[in-house]
Amino acid sequence: MASMDLTALLHDNGSKIILFVWDGVGGVQAGPDTLTELQAARTPNADRLVAAGCCGLLEPVYPGVTPGSGPGHLGLFGYDPVAFQIGRGALEAAGVGFDLRPGDVAARLNFCTLDSGGNICDRRAGRLPNAECRRVVAKLANAIGAVGGIEVHWTPVKEHRALLVLRGEGLGDGLEDTDPQQTGVPPLDVRVKDDSPRTARTAKAVRQVLARAREVLADETKANMVLARGFAERPTWPSVRERFGLRAAVVAGTPMYRGVARLVGMEALDATNDVAKDVASLAAAWNDFDFFFIHYKHTDKAGEDGDFEAKVKCIEEADAALPALEALRPDVLTVTADHSTPSAMKAHSWHPVPVLLSAATARRDAVTAFDEVACIQGGLGLRPSTHLMPLALAHAGRLAKFGA
Amino acid sequence: MASMDLTALLHDNGSKIILFVWDGVGGVQAGPDTLTELQAARTPNADRLVAAGCCGLLEPVYPGVTPGSGPGHLGLFGYDPVAFQIGRGALEAAGVGFDLRPGDVAARLNFCTLDSGGNICDRRAGRLPNAECRRVVAKLANAIGAVGGIEVHWTPVKEHRALLVLRGEGLGDGLEDTDPQQTGVPPLDVRVKDDSPRTARTAKAVRQVLARAREVLADETKANMVLARGFAERPTWPSVRERFGLRAAVVAGTPMYRGVARLVGMEALDATNDVAKDVASLAAAWNDFDFFFIHYKHTDKAGEDGDFEAKVKCIEEADAALPALEALRPDVLTVTADHSTPSAMKAHSWHPVPVLLSAATARRDAVTAFDEVACIQGGLGLRPSTHLMPLALAHAGRLAKFGA
Repeated sequence: MASMDLTALLHDNGSKIILFVWDGVGGVQAGPDTLTELQAARTPNADRLVAAGCCGLLEPVYPGVTPGSGPGHLGLFGYDPVAFQIGRGALEAAGVGFDLRPGDVAARLNFCTLDSGGNICDRRAGRLPNAECRRVVAKLANAIGAVGGIEVHWTPVKEHRALLVLRGEGLGDGLEDTDPQQTGVPPLDVRVKDDSPRTARTAKAVRQVLARAREVLADETKANMVLARGFAERPTWPSVRERFGLRAAVVAGTPMYRGVARLVGMEALDATNDVAKDVASLAAAWNDFDFFFIHYKHTDKAGEDGDFEAKVKCIEEADAALPALEALRPDVLTVTADHSTPSAMKAHSWHPVPVLLSAATARRDAVTAFDEVACIQGGLGLRPSTHLMPLALAHAGRLAKFGA
Repeated sequence: MASMDLTALLHDNGSKIILFVWDGVGGVQAGPDTLTELQAARTPNADRLVAAGCCGLLEPVYPGVTPGSGPGHLGLFGYDPVAFQIGRGALEAAGVGFDLRPGDVAARLNFCTLDSGGNICDRRAGRLPNAECRRVVAKLANAIGAVGGIEVHWTPVKEHRALLVLRGEGLGDGLEDTDPQQTGVPPLDVRVKDDSPRTARTAKAVRQVLARAREVLADETKANMVLARGFAERPTWPSVRERFGLRAAVVAGTPMYRGVARLVGMEALDATNDVAKDVASLAAAWNDFDFFFIHYKHTDKAGEDGDFEAKVKCIEEADAALPALEALRPDVLTVTADHSTPSAMKAHSWHPVPVLLSAATARRDAVTAFDEVACIQGGLGLRPSTHLMPLALAHAGRLAKFGA
């Protein structure tokens, strides 16, 4: 089914929608006679909402496709992740709050360690402490503010990660990564993906920047070079306000998620990754927005660590936050995930994620538990993640009738 | 999934298909411990057909999108309602059997009452009795047969509604409604949506028509003006015969549904909205067609009235008509709806509608009741309404193998 433009149907009735993302909450059983983390967890609040509402499963990007964090969330926001692709650099910029402008080119930098022969011996420079990251980034920023009339902006992210932004006329993002993704070899040269003048001009500037960075960092023992990844311009996408008529806010303690939400026009509220504080931050802005995306990170982290018990505990912590959200009396409250992160796989996976939708207008199905297996029987069926936003709008009374 | 052209697979085996639409039959529960109308109704015949056949849920237009009657039916006929959009005027023309030709421009007229200041005090002229509607339409037709070389056709519909058709060279339908959708203000001027010569020419003619109408109706106490809505040309779509190889008939007592069926090439049989008579009308034409769309209106009406009990009774009346249709021994008998009209919402809604498909070739699933919750477990799954027509053709043996 092709995507449908809903703008002609939008109707602002003042209703409010909460999207509560339990990052990576979907799981798979580790073997016979085992459960998924959601099946094992006690989730009395989600179960109660499912019993009174409807549920189903969402497939994030495409059958069998494992989403990164960006695509996983874009789908939930109603943006087809295949049509709306975003470069790593642009996402990183949005995540740290860097005001990336149209025409800027951003890249993610990883500090690395080169041995005396110029080969990479540590691709993450020993996972630099944050303070060290800030120190070497400041050193680079003091030394390299511009090359050949192009502004160069340096921003620390965390640990070994930083952001590089070039700002000037006639730049483009058609560059390959310089990270060879292995040790024992030197960083790759800056290579172009196309032969446009913009790309050539940008490649020349990046070569100069990286050569200067190597000189400036030569006296460092760990972070003595940078690897550049994901060159990208800021995408110019219609906002959730333009597409769905929503004043939207994001409450996400991790830059990546805040970043992707900002790219579709959500306003970032204070967030800490402490779920009680994050709910309080959302509640404090209740009157100022129509749509609230609140992100719970720890489920994904536990899944990536392969820690089944920790993930179960995180799920129970997220579930316990639901009553405080319900107390705000949203017209629609949905709980779902951007993707699965089964602890049995220690990684993101392609498996569909359970979704619950609670609203006075929901058609109640027969499901009474919020987990991957129970939700197969739900009234929302199995459908692409991009369907969630139109369904949330409908249940909130925000979509007018189509046709006579 | 993109739509597939089935014409190369079509195979006329003389089989017969009945599509029985229970308009707006889908519901939602009004609250905890309540049922939908379909759950509450006794539907022994539909339940028997489900038990012996297969079932599922259809999503009419797009997730979350509430269909008007036109789009809801087009989907059931196999026409993607987003791709096949139809103006209100053209639908109204088809519904009253007006022979709208390519190049004609049709609009729906509502008789209204203007006060002495020229402001609208009743947008429906007190819901004119049908006889009054016919009288004032005849008065207009006698007085205004043409303006500036353009033919003007007036047709009564019912109550306060009439049809206006302009026929002549170089007309177009790029006009806004003159109905301000509120009282206490005058009718809107004729405004254009584009600056084409066709639109300008049509706008000029409509202004003349409306000015003359005001003069002609000046001595009326109730219907002393008309409001024009939904200017539209006749769409030129491939017919169900061209797309699906079907000689198709419609049995629908309400002009709207007959109209949309005629737009895809169905032939209108006698219909009264008395279901027993309508089934008899269908039966009388049994040998002349391959596909029969029979429409049951009253479920939708009861839903719009918010009358749960009445809707339950209507469902039971429609169910009681099934044996007479089965007696014709159709190869495929399907029962479904164009959209949901929950009495709890007193309006059309976006919720998927249950569908049953009875055929010797059906794969029996485990469901034994025809309602929204039971059908979630059905073998047809949850899918767009546009899938019903290819499934009906297949179960009737009308689709050849695709590929070697």
